[in-house]
Amino acid sequence: MAKEVISILVDNHSGVLTRISSLFGRRGFNIDSLTVSTTDKPEVSRITIVVNDDEKVLKQIILQTARLEETRNIFVLNPANSLYRELLLLKVAADKSNRSELREIGGIYKAKIIDLSPGSMVFELTGEPDKIDAFLKMMEDFEILEMCRTGITAIERGGLSEHLS
Amino acid sequence: MAKEVISILVDNHSGVLTRISSLFGRRGFNIDSLTVSTTDKPEVSRITIVVNDDEKVLKQIILQTARLEETRNIFVLNPANSLYRELLLLKVAADKSNRSELREIGGIYKAKIIDLSPGSMVFELTGEPDKIDAFLKMMEDFEILEMCRTGITAIERGGLSEHLS
Repeated sequence: MAKEVISILVDNHSGVLTRISSLFGRRGFNIDSLTVSTTDKPEVSRITIVVNDDEKVLKQIILQTARLEETRNIFVLNPANSLYRELLLLKVAADKSNRSELREIGGIYKAKIIDLSPGSMVFELTGEPDKIDAFLKMMEDFEILEMCRTGITAIERGGLSEHLS
Repeated sequence: MAKEVISILVDNHSGVLTRISSLFGRRGFNIDSLTVSTTDKPEVSRITIVVNDDEKVLKQIILQTARLEETRNIFVLNPANSLYRELLLLKVAADKSNRSELREIGGIYKAKIIDLSPGSMVFELTGEPDKIDAFLKMMEDFEILEMCRTGITAIERGGLSEHLS
């Protein structure tokens, strides 16, 4: 994986996200995905950012982010020791001519069909980003009506993270 | 649901997220969750924001966001006609004394165990936010070591969204 996944624990104040996204945005860094969400502590949010690897610039941004008053902790996940997961919702044009074919592909990927209308089908699929990409590749032959990915969320396997701050 | 889910399609430029999060943050609006991710078009990103309902202020922010050069489309999802999904990764302290109990609860919620170490267990659960909350409530009796939620991602059922811009 040529991508880095960065996990940041921050105080849940309005404005934190703006400061952090501006640090990452300023360098022209392309953010692949970003999620902000609650943790088990209501006063703490977790920001997970996936960026393309450019070690030197990334290291600077991480140091700057670590210095923000609202940053409680920031670390780069170690791919060898982390679980990456992503959620995809995909709406595909579907009628009786291709419904079985779609269902079969979905079944192989263990995607769930969560909605069906006369002209469409919605799949829900959770998995490693590579699996999501492979499923989307199979779906290229069909007409995609809408696609939502949550962005990667990540957790380290049993044991502790290598903290940078 | 007293929460509003807003879906914004934007040009995939660095800096867009900063502008949008600053519009939402400036009013002291508390963002519950936010995800930014790719769509089926590489030049377009989708931002999904969940906020607490305050109709008047929200309407203003939506209008301001719609005016941004990078905003291609913005709409508030209609809960009656939308599918909300969220992904949770949860690491719980677990040893042989409570492993079966944890497994049983996980089984009822159809959560997947994706990692097991001598002292911990990692669950993966995808579902509606209410289901995730209910599962977490059951897990309160155990020692939570780490929790990652992706934030809500949403798609409308077969048919078209009510566009505001």
